[in-house]
Amino acid sequence: MKINGNPMRTLWLRPDGWSVEIIDQTRLPHALETVVLKTADDAAYAIQAMLVRGAPLIGVTAAYGVALAMRKNASDASLEEAIANLAAQRPTAVNLRWALEEMRKALGPLSAEDRVPAAYRHAGRIAEDDVEMCRMIGANGVPLIRELAHRKQGAPVNILTHCNAGWLACIDWGTATSPIYQAHDAGIPVHVFVDETRPRNQGASLTAFELGQHGVPHTLICDNAGGHYMQHGKVDLVITGTDRVAPNGDVANKIGTYLKALAAYDNHVPFFVAFPSSTIDWTISDGTEIPIEERDAREVLSVQGRDPAGRIVQMSIAPPGTPAGNPAFDVTPARLITGLITERGMCRATREGLLSIYPEREIISV
Amino acid sequence: MKINGNPMRTLWLRPDGWSVEIIDQTRLPHALETVVLKTADDAAYAIQAMLVRGAPLIGVTAAYGVALAMRKNASDASLEEAIANLAAQRPTAVNLRWALEEMRKALGPLSAEDRVPAAYRHAGRIAEDDVEMCRMIGANGVPLIRELAHRKQGAPVNILTHCNAGWLACIDWGTATSPIYQAHDAGIPVHVFVDETRPRNQGASLTAFELGQHGVPHTLICDNAGGHYMQHGKVDLVITGTDRVAPNGDVANKIGTYLKALAAYDNHVPFFVAFPSSTIDWTISDGTEIPIEERDAREVLSVQGRDPAGRIVQMSIAPPGTPAGNPAFDVTPARLITGLITERGMCRATREGLLSIYPEREIISV
Repeated sequence: MKINGNPMRTLWLRPDGWSVEIIDQTRLPHALETVVLKTADDAAYAIQAMLVRGAPLIGVTAAYGVALAMRKNASDASLEEAIANLAAQRPTAVNLRWALEEMRKALGPLSAEDRVPAAYRHAGRIAEDDVEMCRMIGANGVPLIRELAHRKQGAPVNILTHCNAGWLACIDWGTATSPIYQAHDAGIPVHVFVDETRPRNQGASLTAFELGQHGVPHTLICDNAGGHYMQHGKVDLVITGTDRVAPNGDVANKIGTYLKALAAYDNHVPFFVAFPSSTIDWTISDGTEIPIEERDAREVLSVQGRDPAGRIVQMSIAPPGTPAGNPAFDVTPARLITGLITERGMCRATREGLLSIYPEREIISV
Repeated sequence: MKINGNPMRTLWLRPDGWSVEIIDQTRLPHALETVVLKTADDAAYAIQAMLVRGAPLIGVTAAYGVALAMRKNASDASLEEAIANLAAQRPTAVNLRWALEEMRKALGPLSAEDRVPAAYRHAGRIAEDDVEMCRMIGANGVPLIRELAHRKQGAPVNILTHCNAGWLACIDWGTATSPIYQAHDAGIPVHVFVDETRPRNQGASLTAFELGQHGVPHTLICDNAGGHYMQHGKVDLVITGTDRVAPNGDVANKIGTYLKALAAYDNHVPFFVAFPSSTIDWTISDGTEIPIEERDAREVLSVQGRDPAGRIVQMSIAPPGTPAGNPAFDVTPARLITGLITERGMCRATREGLLSIYPEREIISV
């Protein structure tokens, strides 16, 4: 997507052909700064300190981290050490472990001298696959927005989103934002209500930033406000991302998604969830089996922002010693979800719906 | 209620018998500071700069502002000037105008020399009436909490509240918090989930502060989290305040209340609204007639807090130039509300329910 009019990704190979440049997302939206990764340790630090975040982007960064490690030392021991070290940076990130496993499978059988070019080739392919997956999610979601625009006779389609399921979490396009960018680029008038998304404010700091840079009209709102806008007919569609989808159509996503789904249902606003196939957990039966991460209370007790002097600081907003609860995700039951958007197409949020676009799952399970 | 173990109110007459001391609420929860009001201009400034906030407290502060004006000059012209100046500080505050009208009615007919003692007497009565009203709301709500405690066999009753309908908005007790304080003081085990309440964070800065100082167990949560806690059976009861009640039982309250009411309804959690009679607007028919104030976008684009050096600062949290929407209230439809708690008693959130405790309204309207 674009920043300041120029196409940009969250991560790219530099002209030297081996070092990797990333956007430092800890500085957004207050400053656009990039960081160059020259070693596997640089990549590990970028993951651990959340210079990169979002499951797909973490995976790609780790894959390039392995390539950087191979460049220094392409031995078996070096490969295993790099994989172990990179995997340890975000213990719960499934995609991180998946990307590292892909690298091990690709590089393990090769001789040391073949590993460096192969590592860059595989890391590049993981990145391009993600871009293509996100692009397809967008292509499959655009008809929905086009239909609403048609019904609104050219008035902007108002889309509410929660958290950041944008290109900053991926390499390009994003998941929930991909249909929005593609509709906008196709000349369909869209306007996005961006939920702030406390406690980490990914909406205010990332989604508002990416939409603004790409030129998509948007309005930042508090997490409290979406229901009111829906009551007053100001929202035509909700699209969110998800961290895990159960085969019955329940989805886990950033805390607060459930409240927006309730309000959408109460006001007959279509509620869609966009994700790549890899997000479906076929091993569980419904959303009650999805574990919910409890994060550090300090995220609730403080807010990061730019002070009047332009410094980025953490500020306390509660009395010292206040106890706080910080569940990072909630589960939205399938009954509140109008439909799912994947790279395979759209479907109902039901087992039958998912099997209609993943028929191989039914065939295997029989 | 108590601060640091000592009983305190939001406003009190000092030992000199004429000057008025208030808690400076703009410094909470980061500092407990008081300010002495010695002139009507001091009172006007305290209202305008939000050193005092909350409808009842604003009204009482204005009443004492008139008393301070009389002390300096008890002429008719001085009375009218003080009333006009105080009324102008918060244009939309109904209670402010009501309190000033009470003062005019009480003082207008009196001679100049009688006005000073009468002004203090009337201001004091407005304050004491508010305390008694809030105390009664609490007394009428306690049986609800006691019943839940009984069902839970002594385990703490978990009560979720939104915004600050606490004693800091009144003189003492508060509205939504009054049943909670009285239950706690009566030895019924309670625990309060405090919604942060963006954009102004009254939950984090005021409700968490008052509950903490009075020793009521509580947990601060993001506005996004309440639905998740209800899904997991962690909330036994919701009590909020309200800014205006329609005769059919619809209520307007701080933005986000509607989302919590939806979640409570979806999870069979009782949802109650506590308020004094004066909050009922008998002139409208339902909540759709309640105007919703759109406040300054800067409240959404920034957060106030304590920086690492201990300074209280406003911090930007969004990209410069981001458009923001800031509806201050939403309307919760009566169908989602289990019951209403007033100083007259509890009732259903219906016209019949309200008329059962305000029978004079039916008699007058016939």
